Amino acid sequence: MKTITSITEMQREAERLRAEGLRIGFVPTMGSLHEGHLDLLRLSRRHADVVVMSVFVNPTQFGAGEDFTLYPRNPERDARLAEDAGCDILFSPDADEVYPPGASTWVQVEGPDAILEGTFRPTHFRGVTTVVTMLFHMVKPHHAVFGQKDAQQALIIRRMVRDLHMDIELLVAPTRRDPDGLAMSSRNTYLSESARAEALAISRSLRLAQRYVVDGGRDAQALLRMVSDELTRTGALIPDYVALVDTDTLEAIERIGTTPVLLAIAARVGKTRLIDNTILRAETIES
Amino acid sequence: MKTITSITEMQREAERLRAEGLRIGFVPTMGSLHEGHLDLLRLSRRHADVVVMSVFVNPTQFGAGEDFTLYPRNPERDARLAEDAGCDILFSPDADEVYPPGASTWVQVEGPDAILEGTFRPTHFRGVTTVVTMLFHMVKPHHAVFGQKDAQQALIIRRMVRDLHMDIELLVAPTRRDPDGLAMSSRNTYLSESARAEALAISRSLRLAQRYVVDGGRDAQALLRMVSDELTRTGALIPDYVALVDTDTLEAIERIGTTPVLLAIAARVGKTRLIDNTILRAETIES
Repeated sequence: MKTITSITEMQREAERLRAEGLRIGFVPTMGSLHEGHLDLLRLSRRHADVVVMSVFVNPTQFGAGEDFTLYPRNPERDARLAEDAGCDILFSPDADEVYPPGASTWVQVEGPDAILEGTFRPTHFRGVTTVVTMLFHMVKPHHAVFGQKDAQQALIIRRMVRDLHMDIELLVAPTRRDPDGLAMSSRNTYLSESARAEALAISRSLRLAQRYVVDGGRDAQALLRMVSDELTRTGALIPDYVALVDTDTLEAIERIGTTPVLLAIAARVGKTRLIDNTILRAETIES
Repeated sequence: MKTITSITEMQREAERLRAEGLRIGFVPTMGSLHEGHLDLLRLSRRHADVVVMSVFVNPTQFGAGEDFTLYPRNPERDARLAEDAGCDILFSPDADEVYPPGASTWVQVEGPDAILEGTFRPTHFRGVTTVVTMLFHMVKPHHAVFGQKDAQQALIIRRMVRDLHMDIELLVAPTRRDPDGLAMSSRNTYLSESARAEALAISRSLRLAQRYVVDGGRDAQALLRMVSDELTRTGALIPDYVALVDTDTLEAIERIGTTPVLLAIAARVGKTRLIDNTILRAETIES
C-alpha cells in the first residue's frame, strides 16, 4: 500500500493511473476505521483496479461545540486495517493544504441539507459536500463509496454529483452492525458500557418498525409513536428526531407503501450523538 | 470542428482525448462571439492539443429583471467564427440538461462575490462559479481561459479553482478593444450610435487614469474623482461604481504603489450596463 499526503502528488498519481486505463475506486473516511469502513473498501475493491481510501478529519463539517478535537484518531491502526482490507493508496492530506489561508469557497446542496441532521447541525452538510468535492478533484475517481448508515449524507452527495455533473459513479454499502445490533460508528468509542446498553434501543426500535411493516402496519404516525416510545422508555436516550421520509426527497410520508421509505433516527445518550436508519417498504417485505 | 450538445458525450470525448495524452484547452462563453472571445480561443490554441469552446447562455448568472431573454444569440455565426479561429469542439449543452429538474447545488466563493459587481448583481457570481464548475466537470480541461475584461470574475474563478483543488490551469487574456477604445462585449450590440459615443467615456477615463499614474499621480481619491468626473461629464452615463482595489483581495487601496492595482468601472448608458477595467502600477509605467 502506498501512502500519499501531498494533494499534488495524489493528482499526479490519479492522472497516471487513468492514463493507463485503470479504474480508480474511492472511499472517503475520517479514519478511526471499523468494519463498516472496511466494507466500503471491499465494495470499492470489487469495482476498481486501484482503491484509494482517504483519511481526513474534516474540520468544516463539525459545528461549534461539536467533537472535532476529540474525534478519535488512530493513523497507524487505520493504515494497517486499510492495507489488510485491500487498499492500494492511503491518502491523508494535511488540513492546512486542504484549506489554505483565505479559503472561502463552499459547495452546498440547498434543501435536503436543511432538514433532519441539518436542523441540528446547520453547517454540517455544507462542510461535507465541500470536502467531498475537493477530495473528488484530488483523487479523480471513477466511483466513490458511501455508507447507508449516513443515509442523508449519501442522498445529498448523490444530488451534488448529479447537479454538478461530476462524472463519478456512487456506490452505497449497507450498514455494518455489531452482534448486539448497534450500528458501527467511530463515535461508539465514546460510549461507556452502560451508555452502550442504552444505545441499543436505537437498533431495537428499527427492528420493531420492520416487524410492524411485516405484520401489515402502514400508518406512519403509529409507527413513529412506537419507535419513539421504545427510544424514550428508560429516559437515558434523548431523540433529536425520528422521521419517516421519502428516500429521494426526504419529505415526510404518511403511509408506508410500495415505494421504499427511510426511517431515520438521531438520539443522544450522554454527550454522544448517534444516528441510525433503515429502509422500509411494504411489498418487498411481504412478498 | 466537431459539435457536441450531450453532456455525457462531451465527458466521453474528454476521457478519450485525455487517455490519448492530449491536452484539452477550454474557453467557456455565452456565445454571440466577438474578437475578444476569439483571442481567448487563440490563447488556448497555443497551450492545448484540443480546444473546446462552450456556448451556453447560463440562466443562473442573470438576476431578476436582467437581460437573460434578450441576451444576443447567434449560434450559426458563432460556429463559423469558432471554427475559423481554430476551435476543435464546439460544446453547446442544453439548459434542461445542465439544470435538471430539482437542481439545487451551488458553488459559491464567499467574500469577493459580494463586492463591486456583487453589490449590484447579488446572485451573479454564484451562478458563474456554479456553471463553470459544471462545465469543468463536463469538459475536463487541462487549462481554461477567461478574459481580463471580467476581472472580478477571473479573480473569483481563480479563488474557486484554488480552494476546491481543481487540477486546472487558468489563463487570462487581455481585453480586446474596438478602434474607438470601447472594450468588446456581446452587450455592445444593445448600444445605439449615440449611446456608444457616450460609452466611450469609460475607456477614455481609464486612459486618463493611466496618464495620471505615468505623470506621477499616486493618490487614489484624486484619481477616482478624476475618473468619475470624466464618466459623468455629459450626464448620459450613470456609474454603478468606480473602484481602485487590490488585484487579489479586491480591497480598496489608498495610494498607487509598486503592487498592481485594479481600476474597475461599471456604468449604465440607457438600459445597457457596461464594465471595463485596467491595471495600474507605479513602477512598471515609470521604468
